[in-house]
Amino acid sequence: MRFDEAYSGKVFIMSNPSYEEAKAVIYGMPMDWTVSFRPGSRFGPNRIREASLGLEEYSPYMDKHLEEVNYFDAGDIPLPFGNAARSLDMVEEYVDKLLADGKFPIGLGGEHLLSWPIFKAMNKKYEDIAIIHIDAHADLREEYEGEVLSHSTPIRKACGLIGAENVYSFGIRSGMREEFQFAKESGMHMSKFEVAEPLKKILPTLAGRNVYVTIDIDVLDPSCAPGTGTAEAGGITSKELLDAIGAIADSGINIIGADLVEVAPAYDPTEQTQITASKMIREIILGWV
Amino acid sequence: MRFDEAYSGKVFIMSNPSYEEAKAVIYGMPMDWTVSFRPGSRFGPNRIREASLGLEEYSPYMDKHLEEVNYFDAGDIPLPFGNAARSLDMVEEYVDKLLADGKFPIGLGGEHLLSWPIFKAMNKKYEDIAIIHIDAHADLREEYEGEVLSHSTPIRKACGLIGAENVYSFGIRSGMREEFQFAKESGMHMSKFEVAEPLKKILPTLAGRNVYVTIDIDVLDPSCAPGTGTAEAGGITSKELLDAIGAIADSGINIIGADLVEVAPAYDPTEQTQITASKMIREIILGWV
Amino acid sequence: MRFDEAYSGKVFIMSNPSYEEAKAVIYGMPMDWTVSFRPGSRFGPNRIREASLGLEEYSPYMDKHLEEVNYFDAGDIPLPFGNAARSLDMVEEYVDKLLADGKFPIGLGGEHLLSWPIFKAMNKKYEDIAIIHIDAHADLREEYEGEVLSHSTPIRKACGLIGAENVYSFGIRSGMREEFQFAKESGMHMSKFEVAEPLKKILPTLAGRNVYVTIDIDVLDPSCAPGTGTAEAGGITSKELLDAIGAIADSGINIIGADLVEVAPAYDPTEQTQITASKMIREIILGWV
Amino acid sequence: MRFDEAYSGKVFIMSNPSYEEAKAVIYGMPMDWTVSFRPGSRFGPNRIREASLGLEEYSPYMDKHLEEVNYFDAGDIPLPFGNAARSLDMVEEYVDKLLADGKFPIGLGGEHLLSWPIFKAMNKKYEDIAIIHIDAHADLREEYEGEVLSHSTPIRKACGLIGAENVYSFGIRSGMREEFQFAKESGMHMSKFEVAEPLKKILPTLAGRNVYVTIDIDVLDPSCAPGTGTAEAGGITSKELLDAIGAIADSGINIIGADLVEVAPAYDPTEQTQITASKMIREIILGWV
Amino acid sequence: MRFDEAYSGKVFIMSNPSYEEAKAVIYGMPMDWTVSFRPGSRFGPNRIREASLGLEEYSPYMDKHLEEVNYFDAGDIPLPFGNAARSLDMVEEYVDKLLADGKFPIGLGGEHLLSWPIFKAMNKKYEDIAIIHIDAHADLREEYEGEVLSHSTPIRKACGLIGAENVYSFGIRSGMREEFQFAKESGMHMSKFEVAEPLKKILPTLAGRNVYVTIDIDVLDPSCAPGTGTAEAGGITSKELLDAIGAIADSGINIIGADLVEVAPAYDPTEQTQITASKMIREIILGWV
Amino acid sequence: MRFDEAYSGKVFIMSNPSYEEAKAVIYGMPMDWTVSFRPGSRFGPNRIREASLGLEEYSPYMDKHLEEVNYFDAGDIPLPFGNAARSLDMVEEYVDKLLADGKFPIGLGGEHLLSWPIFKAMNKKYEDIAIIHIDAHADLREEYEGEVLSHSTPIRKACGLIGAENVYSFGIRSGMREEFQFAKESGMHMSKFEVAEPLKKILPTLAGRNVYVTIDIDVLDPSCAPGTGTAEAGGITSKELLDAIGAIADSGINIIGADLVEVAPAYDPTEQTQITASKMIREIILGWV
Repeated sequence: MRFDEAYSGKVFIMSNPSYEEAKAVIYGMPMDWTVSFRPGSRFGPNRIREASLGLEEYSPYMDKHLEEVNYFDAGDIPLPFGNAARSLDMVEEYVDKLLADGKFPIGLGGEHLLSWPIFKAMNKKYEDIAIIHIDAHADLREEYEGEVLSHSTPIRKACGLIGAENVYSFGIRSGMREEFQFAKESGMHMSKFEVAEPLKKILPTLAGRNVYVTIDIDVLDPSCAPGTGTAEAGGITSKELLDAIGAIADSGINIIGADLVEVAPAYDPTEQTQITASKMIREIILGWV
Repeated sequence: MRFDEAYSGKVFIMSNPSYEEAKAVIYGMPMDWTVSFRPGSRFGPNRIREASLGLEEYSPYMDKHLEEVNYFDAGDIPLPFGNAARSLDMVEEYVDKLLADGKFPIGLGGEHLLSWPIFKAMNKKYEDIAIIHIDAHADLREEYEGEVLSHSTPIRKACGLIGAENVYSFGIRSGMREEFQFAKESGMHMSKFEVAEPLKKILPTLAGRNVYVTIDIDVLDPSCAPGTGTAEAGGITSKELLDAIGAIADSGINIIGADLVEVAPAYDPTEQTQITASKMIREIILGWV
Repeated sequence: MRFDEAYSGKVFIMSNPSYEEAKAVIYGMPMDWTVSFRPGSRFGPNRIREASLGLEEYSPYMDKHLEEVNYFDAGDIPLPFGNAARSLDMVEEYVDKLLADGKFPIGLGGEHLLSWPIFKAMNKKYEDIAIIHIDAHADLREEYEGEVLSHSTPIRKACGLIGAENVYSFGIRSGMREEFQFAKESGMHMSKFEVAEPLKKILPTLAGRNVYVTIDIDVLDPSCAPGTGTAEAGGITSKELLDAIGAIADSGINIIGADLVEVAPAYDPTEQTQITASKMIREIILGWV
Repeated sequence: MRFDEAYSGKVFIMSNPSYEEAKAVIYGMPMDWTVSFRPGSRFGPNRIREASLGLEEYSPYMDKHLEEVNYFDAGDIPLPFGNAARSLDMVEEYVDKLLADGKFPIGLGGEHLLSWPIFKAMNKKYEDIAIIHIDAHADLREEYEGEVLSHSTPIRKACGLIGAENVYSFGIRSGMREEFQFAKESGMHMSKFEVAEPLKKILPTLAGRNVYVTIDIDVLDPSCAPGTGTAEAGGITSKELLDAIGAIADSGINIIGADLVEVAPAYDPTEQTQITASKMIREIILGWV
Repeated sequence: MRFDEAYSGKVFIMSNPSYEEAKAVIYGMPMDWTVSFRPGSRFGPNRIREASLGLEEYSPYMDKHLEEVNYFDAGDIPLPFGNAARSLDMVEEYVDKLLADGKFPIGLGGEHLLSWPIFKAMNKKYEDIAIIHIDAHADLREEYEGEVLSHSTPIRKACGLIGAENVYSFGIRSGMREEFQFAKESGMHMSKFEVAEPLKKILPTLAGRNVYVTIDIDVLDPSCAPGTGTAEAGGITSKELLDAIGAIADSGINIIGADLVEVAPAYDPTEQTQITASKMIREIILGWV
Repeated sequence: MRFDEAYSGKVFIMSNPSYEEAKAVIYGMPMDWTVSFRPGSRFGPNRIREASLGLEEYSPYMDKHLEEVNYFDAGDIPLPFGNAARSLDMVEEYVDKLLADGKFPIGLGGEHLLSWPIFKAMNKKYEDIAIIHIDAHADLREEYEGEVLSHSTPIRKACGLIGAENVYSFGIRSGMREEFQFAKESGMHMSKFEVAEPLKKILPTLAGRNVYVTIDIDVLDPSCAPGTGTAEAGGITSKELLDAIGAIADSGINIIGADLVEVAPAYDPTEQTQITASKMIREIILGWV
């Protein structure tokens, strides 16, 4: 027992001790500064780690064990409270470094705007990028109440960055009329309401490309994920999300990174949201890295 | 900014300021005096309004925006505590007035007995009425523990008022043996357990009639609506309820009013029950008015 | 009103006053000593009884009323805190007595290890036993952290006792790799992820045998049963569990006893877990006794 | 182990098995029909019993052990839902019987109106009665919204029954102006805000009389008892209430019965309200019987 | 019953219908954009109003009834999400108007930074201003993480505006070393830990001046007000805060306005924080207007 | 930003990076295997660390800043689930090492039995030891239900180890009669109910000795610390506990180590228990190291 490493319960289960040797890196982004309705996702990353203690290390979905993947939980990026612009810069710089070191980044949110600097870092590193976006909300606004750095905008920004035709949204059931119009006219893909079935149809078309996946936990029905800022009735089950994650793994496409955002533990005294999120992270580690 | 109208968060989002010009009127009925198991629905209407703050104003289900419907949230009827008989009279008188003024009434409960005076007002105003009843419970009792004014009786009373053959119940999964026998023998329609599929079969037969719809939030599975007095396992998902509301909208039948009852916020610290209820009300406004 | 019997709310609804005349006996097992992640199921039995107050006595699933079955709620076995070995002995002795008296035992847990002494008692009394096991977890470990008396082991022990080929597990979605390997190689039946459909296929093969059924409430998705020690995302709905219970009742096979375990009320402020569990117990009484 | 008595956790700890031999009888009154703000005290009695499991049987305050007092927990009176008049009659009849059998009655509420029939039974049995009333609310209304059977009226009724000069209220910090005027003019005693100090001054004057004590848990500050219908800031600590109970025990006056009312568990997920209430009941058993 | 005024439960109890005739105006400020630890006070104002339904209209502390004061609840100022600078401007403009109309402003927060624009409006209108500040936190920072618009700064700003010698802080038990040094050196008054006793000594020195009072609910111990962003152990009881409010009323000094801030309902499922806050507002209305 | 150290939120605030240079070491003991009533303190240490994020680094009580003390948060000792004997051995060995390295140990529980191996390690290292024990419970049992390794026994064991006359208990309000008799007859010191005042009288007598302090969070009233296994009404306020910690610091006696145990977060959705505990740890670091 070394005195500098006994952080049981503070890292995702089975995290390896060495950043250098790790293939994938889990990192937390404790920011919710731009959340309009129910803030609190800044506490998401640590509760996901805590909940991982209750997980089995083996997945019967993937028939694979966490010891088969070398990953390192790097903790949270110390984002400066209330300063969205600086926080986003720090995340971008952080992911730049991860990619320079050849790591597969797995981000834990925090709010969805945090995916924006990750997209930028990914786009600098990789060519021919596509983004799979699984969410209840379109997140296609240009601004929210005059603010361009809003949790309602990251997918619109992604469309500008990599071309709308390279963005694939699934499960969308909420947004402004303008967002749905943009989805229709911009050339992006948007599957409303459903995730697993339309995704399985799209996956073959992504073969050979570099694909980043961003999952907003609120794609789940509020019954499955009440602990989130903007719960939206009519969502998918955690069974369907597991099915989607499995389908991506089975498709053989080249996944280059992923994030899971918007877990806000304060609204869920049952803790099921972080329990479910931690299982999704296990499946992502086992299936996508 | 006028000082007499800044009631943000106290009315359903996008409520218009004028009763006179409104086509539909939302009104709350804060009564739970006859609830036997877990009281608290008296606080339902205000929490539904509060939760509406988190909604988008546009619905991708209906492809319609709340600004396209002129409705007015009239607040709660000040029902006298503990006095069921007087409360019901007040609701009937209130809805009489709404109908006299040509409004489409949208009632927020409160307990299900409150639908009874609404049925009476509706029946005075309209001919050839049919009632669609979406609920976990049959509510077909003649009395409960000797009391005829009980939340277990409104649909039985409706059968007496407009004829059992004009009452259509969906999703029923709880009741006394006598209630299910009455359903079988009386000529009413009852679909057990399911809502959307049987409803879609019935809707064409209601063409040309005046149809009132009453929804008890407990038709949802407790996982989707734990904040209710008598949660009953084995219910439908909020996805199926959204589907049912959409099917009614698409059917083109003439809806003359609606209510959503039995939201009891104290039993749901996740707040998902009122979040879900407020979305259902948005869809009702957009699809049925 | 007799002063020695007015225990309203302390026994399962409609419990009869006489042990001697009862056909079935409900008993609680308030033990969670070996639970690793979130303890608390020791409080399960009493909260299930309390929640039964909100149930209808008639089931539209079974078309049957609780007054048609003579059962007695015997309360909880006073298990000695922290002493797993002695507790298991007491449960075995208790069920021995129930079986000697010709009763149909219905156990309320408490942790899943409690099924182990029941299996032993059953096996002493009945020949040609089969066990139906409905659960999220395989529970096929030989030991947990060196301890053979663990809540992860009862089904493995059952395989040793009655032969793996007589054990049928459904809904399993969590376990160690070794457990799934054992399931494959031992000759037992294991249906992963699903319950009702595979069960319906197996039931005819069990005709003529003596079948005991053990249900872990965590087979349900956390959205339906957050109040349990080891919630596991991706589970079945309470509708599917009701369907499974009904299928067993309809199959006409000879059920000799049942238990429902792992309800841990502290993690579910909505109380839906015990509300749902109490409905399952009602269906078991009506369909299996 | 007898099969008809193993009700661990369903009666107050250390309850004796025989009504006949018991000196004191604990009984529950699960009624909250007339509660205006936050109903739910109908579930109070059973949760107090459940919480008693966590108590030590010995009190260092009284230097006495529960085995030194022979008491019997008779369970709840099965009060008919929603029927206040009939419920009150049943309670009166019940307490009449307890008194006829020479028992010391200890009632668990339920709402405060339930003390009214107890007062009547007490007054029939005993001469020269005085009532000690410990509460946040004056409960001196003649009626509430036109209803004479209200939880705001029992102390006014008591004044009419035994004479206002025989009623002693402590801790009162809420009521209508008329109630405080009545308190001043009627000749009753009312100590506002404080309990232990004024009580200690009054106790010597009650020597030789037959004194009944009714405690509303909301006399405690909401910080100490959030699980109650009408929490009122500015209350006493549980330390002060323990001090008051001890002072009554030490005073040597003749206590003839007691009740503790208004525990409403649904509003207190920490469970501290029932934990505290169960300790008060232990002290009452040890100090007053 | 008029259809445009039946907002029961949406305004503070006994609010009068006319802004023009009202002497005092209650207004909500739903902003928590700069909160660093646990956001959520944006929902405070409405929950305080909702909780006021459980209050008596008469105060035995003040011996006064709410009908004796003419006040109007104007609802919430519709502050633009995430834009602190604009929100503060709107509050200042709003209070300017209230003061121009001769009203006594009673603000409901929302975060404490909202007091800053109120101070500015007050200072424009009144001469010889003093501020009484009751809080757990010094709020004397010049900036927080580089941001001058922070909820940690309003009292420092007040010192700059009206002179530190005119600022009186009570109950302070948390802050940076620099804040306590500033308190010592600047000439302001700061009473650490206690409120009522030191306040009573200061009050006579404020005779003849125009005094504004700002109360942060977190001056209460977390046991009395868990529903706040930055709960700080070691606080005062609600009894002491009532005593302080009463002392100000009794002192006869000229109070020109008040606010109560930092109620964050999401962290308090018992609802006692808003229940307590609503009582404080009642006392402020009765004692200070 | 180094990738191997960004554990924000996972260590107590202001923890230094080097074990070697640290004067004090914080370590967690996530064990609750022997808890009889409400388990869950295994999650205490991490939630205390998480809550420390909301603390100021400066204490106005001590007039001292955390940067003035060099301490290292070593994380949790990975105790083997369910194995009390082995867990206690590991804690003893761990503290032996800390003491050999000259560190001041600050333990976070976990259940109170964990203090026992710490006592043993302390006694091996230091001569003339005294123990200050602040708790609601006497913890003087010889065994609990036949088990000598129980959370009810550590102080009795301490009496055997270092002599009862060297053990000083404060705040005790619960235990068996035998425990209070032992306290009286053994020569130990026990102050019932109160902490700060009796402690201040004892402190001068401890001058020159080596004093270890163990604090059970349940010495606080349940209103101040509902998140604990065995909440006991009638406790002290957090103000009094802060006073006691300050008095020990001011006394100048030689403190050699400390622990704070029995924080069980699951029972306190308000999170105030861990918020309060983290403040106590800050004061201990500032005042005792």
